[in-house]
Amino acid sequence: MTLNIGVIGTGAIGQDHIRRCSFALSGARVVAVNDINQDQAKKVVSDLGIAAEVYADAHELINAANVDAILVTSWGPSHEEFVLSAIRAGKPVFCEKPLAVTAAGCKNIVDAEMAFGKRLVQVGFMRPYDQGYRALKAAIDGGRIGEPLMIHAAHRNARVGQAYATDMAITDTLIHEINVLGWLLDDHYVSAQVIFPRKTSKALAHLKDPQIVLLETARGTRIDVEVFVNCQYGYDIQCEVVGETGIARLPEPSSVQLRSEAKLSNEILVDWKDRFIAAYDVELQAFIDAVVAGRVGGPSAWDGYTAAVTADACVAAQRSGKVEPIELPERPAFYAPA
Amino acid sequence: MTLNIGVIGTGAIGQDHIRRCSFALSGARVVAVNDINQDQAKKVVSDLGIAAEVYADAHELINAANVDAILVTSWGPSHEEFVLSAIRAGKPVFCEKPLAVTAAGCKNIVDAEMAFGKRLVQVGFMRPYDQGYRALKAAIDGGRIGEPLMIHAAHRNARVGQAYATDMAITDTLIHEINVLGWLLDDHYVSAQVIFPRKTSKALAHLKDPQIVLLETARGTRIDVEVFVNCQYGYDIQCEVVGETGIARLPEPSSVQLRSEAKLSNEILVDWKDRFIAAYDVELQAFIDAVVAGRVGGPSAWDGYTAAVTADACVAAQRSGKVEPIELPERPAFYAPA
Amino acid sequence: MTLNIGVIGTGAIGQDHIRRCSFALSGARVVAVNDINQDQAKKVVSDLGIAAEVYADAHELINAANVDAILVTSWGPSHEEFVLSAIRAGKPVFCEKPLAVTAAGCKNIVDAEMAFGKRLVQVGFMRPYDQGYRALKAAIDGGRIGEPLMIHAAHRNARVGQAYATDMAITDTLIHEINVLGWLLDDHYVSAQVIFPRKTSKALAHLKDPQIVLLETARGTRIDVEVFVNCQYGYDIQCEVVGETGIARLPEPSSVQLRSEAKLSNEILVDWKDRFIAAYDVELQAFIDAVVAGRVGGPSAWDGYTAAVTADACVAAQRSGKVEPIELPERPAFYAPA
Amino acid sequence: MTLNIGVIGTGAIGQDHIRRCSFALSGARVVAVNDINQDQAKKVVSDLGIAAEVYADAHELINAANVDAILVTSWGPSHEEFVLSAIRAGKPVFCEKPLAVTAAGCKNIVDAEMAFGKRLVQVGFMRPYDQGYRALKAAIDGGRIGEPLMIHAAHRNARVGQAYATDMAITDTLIHEINVLGWLLDDHYVSAQVIFPRKTSKALAHLKDPQIVLLETARGTRIDVEVFVNCQYGYDIQCEVVGETGIARLPEPSSVQLRSEAKLSNEILVDWKDRFIAAYDVELQAFIDAVVAGRVGGPSAWDGYTAAVTADACVAAQRSGKVEPIELPERPAFYAPA
Repeated sequence: MTLNIGVIGTGAIGQDHIRRCSFALSGARVVAVNDINQDQAKKVVSDLGIAAEVYADAHELINAANVDAILVTSWGPSHEEFVLSAIRAGKPVFCEKPLAVTAAGCKNIVDAEMAFGKRLVQVGFMRPYDQGYRALKAAIDGGRIGEPLMIHAAHRNARVGQAYATDMAITDTLIHEINVLGWLLDDHYVSAQVIFPRKTSKALAHLKDPQIVLLETARGTRIDVEVFVNCQYGYDIQCEVVGETGIARLPEPSSVQLRSEAKLSNEILVDWKDRFIAAYDVELQAFIDAVVAGRVGGPSAWDGYTAAVTADACVAAQRSGKVEPIELPERPAFYAPA
Repeated sequence: MTLNIGVIGTGAIGQDHIRRCSFALSGARVVAVNDINQDQAKKVVSDLGIAAEVYADAHELINAANVDAILVTSWGPSHEEFVLSAIRAGKPVFCEKPLAVTAAGCKNIVDAEMAFGKRLVQVGFMRPYDQGYRALKAAIDGGRIGEPLMIHAAHRNARVGQAYATDMAITDTLIHEINVLGWLLDDHYVSAQVIFPRKTSKALAHLKDPQIVLLETARGTRIDVEVFVNCQYGYDIQCEVVGETGIARLPEPSSVQLRSEAKLSNEILVDWKDRFIAAYDVELQAFIDAVVAGRVGGPSAWDGYTAAVTADACVAAQRSGKVEPIELPERPAFYAPA
Repeated sequence: MTLNIGVIGTGAIGQDHIRRCSFALSGARVVAVNDINQDQAKKVVSDLGIAAEVYADAHELINAANVDAILVTSWGPSHEEFVLSAIRAGKPVFCEKPLAVTAAGCKNIVDAEMAFGKRLVQVGFMRPYDQGYRALKAAIDGGRIGEPLMIHAAHRNARVGQAYATDMAITDTLIHEINVLGWLLDDHYVSAQVIFPRKTSKALAHLKDPQIVLLETARGTRIDVEVFVNCQYGYDIQCEVVGETGIARLPEPSSVQLRSEAKLSNEILVDWKDRFIAAYDVELQAFIDAVVAGRVGGPSAWDGYTAAVTADACVAAQRSGKVEPIELPERPAFYAPA
Repeated sequence: MTLNIGVIGTGAIGQDHIRRCSFALSGARVVAVNDINQDQAKKVVSDLGIAAEVYADAHELINAANVDAILVTSWGPSHEEFVLSAIRAGKPVFCEKPLAVTAAGCKNIVDAEMAFGKRLVQVGFMRPYDQGYRALKAAIDGGRIGEPLMIHAAHRNARVGQAYATDMAITDTLIHEINVLGWLLDDHYVSAQVIFPRKTSKALAHLKDPQIVLLETARGTRIDVEVFVNCQYGYDIQCEVVGETGIARLPEPSSVQLRSEAKLSNEILVDWKDRFIAAYDVELQAFIDAVVAGRVGGPSAWDGYTAAVTADACVAAQRSGKVEPIELPERPAFYAPA
């Protein structure tokens, strides 16, 4: 059985997912495409040479009889509307992050999905599908380091553009750590604090960079994440989990070791797109396989919602300079992890 | 367009490739299956739940109208016959190693393919599809270490069974290095010597283990490969290329770094099947994509033939204790690398 | 010229320094020894077979005509008295940490030394003499990572005994980081905060372990130090300096890399005494060489004083749970780094 | 007790050892100095500011009443004469390599020393005093890898000058591996073969570079050593011992890990003098301590002799292209390792 997919939004990430479903993954094909710019949608279909119908209206695409599942890869502020529409149609939907641009919007989706009575939504957090993070979680869950007590993490970009503002260190950058570290620990956050070290001279005037975000989880695990988006040297994701009996560290991306010019060296990636490229394939294949098997798994609407609440507290902590509490309702049994 | 594949041989590797084409790769499906044991073939089709016809006769399968391409994963001694049959049918054929059990058999295939006038055969050497070897080749080809002068390599297994004989260190084990190092250097071998170090007490009485194979290439690059199939500690593939200005080393498989019990450690794989698991997917996807695009690439019948000739010389060197010459006809332009 | 040394205090560290001066270092000999337990002093002299006079009174030793320089390795609370006595005698004095048990006591020494008009005191902070930290400082000072913005550090012990209390995480453990990181950055601290993660089940009831200490320097560099004294796996000192253009990391102690039992591993030290063993030699040789050359260098009374003030603030932060300011007078020109 | 040392030869290495004995090591002083160029000897004594008598005649120095032990650091061809003279005088003598410029000369020394009846000679092979090799030997002797079966080693220099000839790859370069690998394995060599890979374009016309030397030990352990003296990238010493159950690898020199300019890197040394600098101190201190304790240990005249015989066979193998046997008399009990 081949899963028929409809894609809403044909920008960079949309095109990438269409290509993935059409030429790299197994068990799916893209049969319907929509974009606010209809010419763009037509061009993508034509360039990729796929047999997909272009819809002028996203809701029409969602409700099309031959569309089995939806990918939402449109502009962030439109996500909530399309995900809610998919839920109304009772169709599985994979939504790129953010699930919604506000915590309230995410909560609307959670409520709608719970009212529907069955999971339909997978949020596009890809790090839990990265082989390195999975190995790290396996080490923790396998008792290799005892109970986790602390995480030291870093999220570094070589540089960012003019549009990148101080709060985007949370909403665009840290958001991945918020998701993946919660998943890694099977825990959620109860407080956040942000520290601003001496600013790098490489950052633009309006941006505070680097930042250190301190998170506390419900079980008391303490997390420090260095967010440094003008670190110059590369795109570098670090994660070290300190447990009661040992420490586990996220693998560095595999690379050739060179001895050359008085240096023993391995390359560090520069483009963030290369870092989790394999995880995108795994993530979307997991969605396809799950839908074909009659269920939806992976990062849930609840995960999207709690990430949004946590990010809001971090942004508040950026502004207040204080420890900000994070208050979340208890996780409904509906969203219990598998 | 979906490529319709017929598979001859439904043992472990055959089943694995059927599963791969059906549920992991893009653009192909298995429509026909044959095995010398027809019940086995039926069981595999039924267990995997695929819609494939079971053929009693392999040649019939090869010539079936709806079969676009063939995978030969049957018993080694039958490979030559089926590959020649596929060439006669003018159909692309992916043949697991060995291409044929003798150099003469490989040569028959080379001759048949050249007579046909177009490449149809890809041999199942998977290492050139491994991400690590590809990165290593990119480093060499990119001039990062200058002209290669030497390779130090090792192929180690934790242990082997009773059936593993001294010459299998060449024909089953070293054969992968013969292929991949030739590809890495874009060169072929001109002599071989085998040295037997002090034997490990962990090897069975009939087996000489470890062995060191010394290969010389046409351009004078010298290769030493340690083959050690009872090394106890794991499955470990090492490859270090020494060039005029630097050295490049095959990446270790990515793994979590642990600090625990007074050790800073990374896991070493134990099961060889885990080491190149991703490469099998890439290899077969490359075959499918190439066939769909109207050409066949990857390891050629010529590569299969030269590997067989080289292996024969290594086995002769095991027996003679001397430096054995390797004589090969010049590579036909037909088989020039892409 | 051989430097004649008098040693006050013949406990473990005193004996170690006597052995060092007598049998490992160049240019000095121990000619006088004192201990509150005179029998102990006699036994040490006799066991080591050195020709040193045993003094009943430490001040008499300090003032002995043939004693050129003093080592104070007695009980911490007696350090201040003996260092002040040495200053009065105008003799160079190497004092094991702490310089004094209170910041006020340290200040007394600073004042006395400045009144004397010339540096006489070196404090026994040995990490600046460690080859790894020196290489790290050379990398920073050589501009390899640009201006330092953050330091991530860890100080981990396998386990501690009953006597180790929560504030000793500062006064006995963090005190080394307080010294060496200030030296590394050529900067001093302006605030401290302490965070208590989930407590390890391996710590005794009265001890909070692990702790995370956050320090801020005058130039705005932010430091986080994980102090974890029941980490079980070993004695492990980590230090990573994040600069504007790169990151430099303290070398791991050199060790044999093993491939064994499915692991690629390096040993981690367990006993802290092994970690900086070479640094003690370098430190004391530097004191001897400097005194012979007519000057005293290395960690100064000022460094001892500022470490004490900083430690006091960290202990206050442990108790208050707040960010505690660290107020220090400006460094006198007298104590300008070389 | 202070050991009074006489030094014959005040070139670079002689000056270095004089400085070491005078200002870095414990328990010795240089009281007598000789050089074929007496002005040079005087200048060294004066420059270093030591109280040493300058002798016009080396034998007079050897026999001087106040000289307890001799360092021979003169021109290689004079070593044999001076060592024999020291043995006649019954004085401990530390002789820089080579012990003698021919195997026969070494044998003369062995015979003289055995006739004297007590060990007096230590040869200046410093690698057994290197902390890394000692840790490697401890791992082997501690049973961490089982019985050694193979060693893969490399000795690489960035570049060599005009004077460096093909046989110096053995006599100046490989000689260190000949010594240290025999010590590591507690074994001696029975055959040698030399392979010449494709020559690097960076070597001068008269020099074959790189070379691979294959050695076989009495117990059947097989060793391959890559000697590559124009490798461009640095001075790099590698040694990997493959045992029945695991592999142990010589530590890389400790260095700061940098993340910078898209590279994760550690420095590789360029100057060979930096690589074993600490080992020279340990080696000479061991000689001093041993002499003071009334015995001589470390690399013996026998080790110097067997290294010379082995090197001769390697040079013969360079010329013949064949496997050359190495024939050694049995090691006398007199030279049994401690």
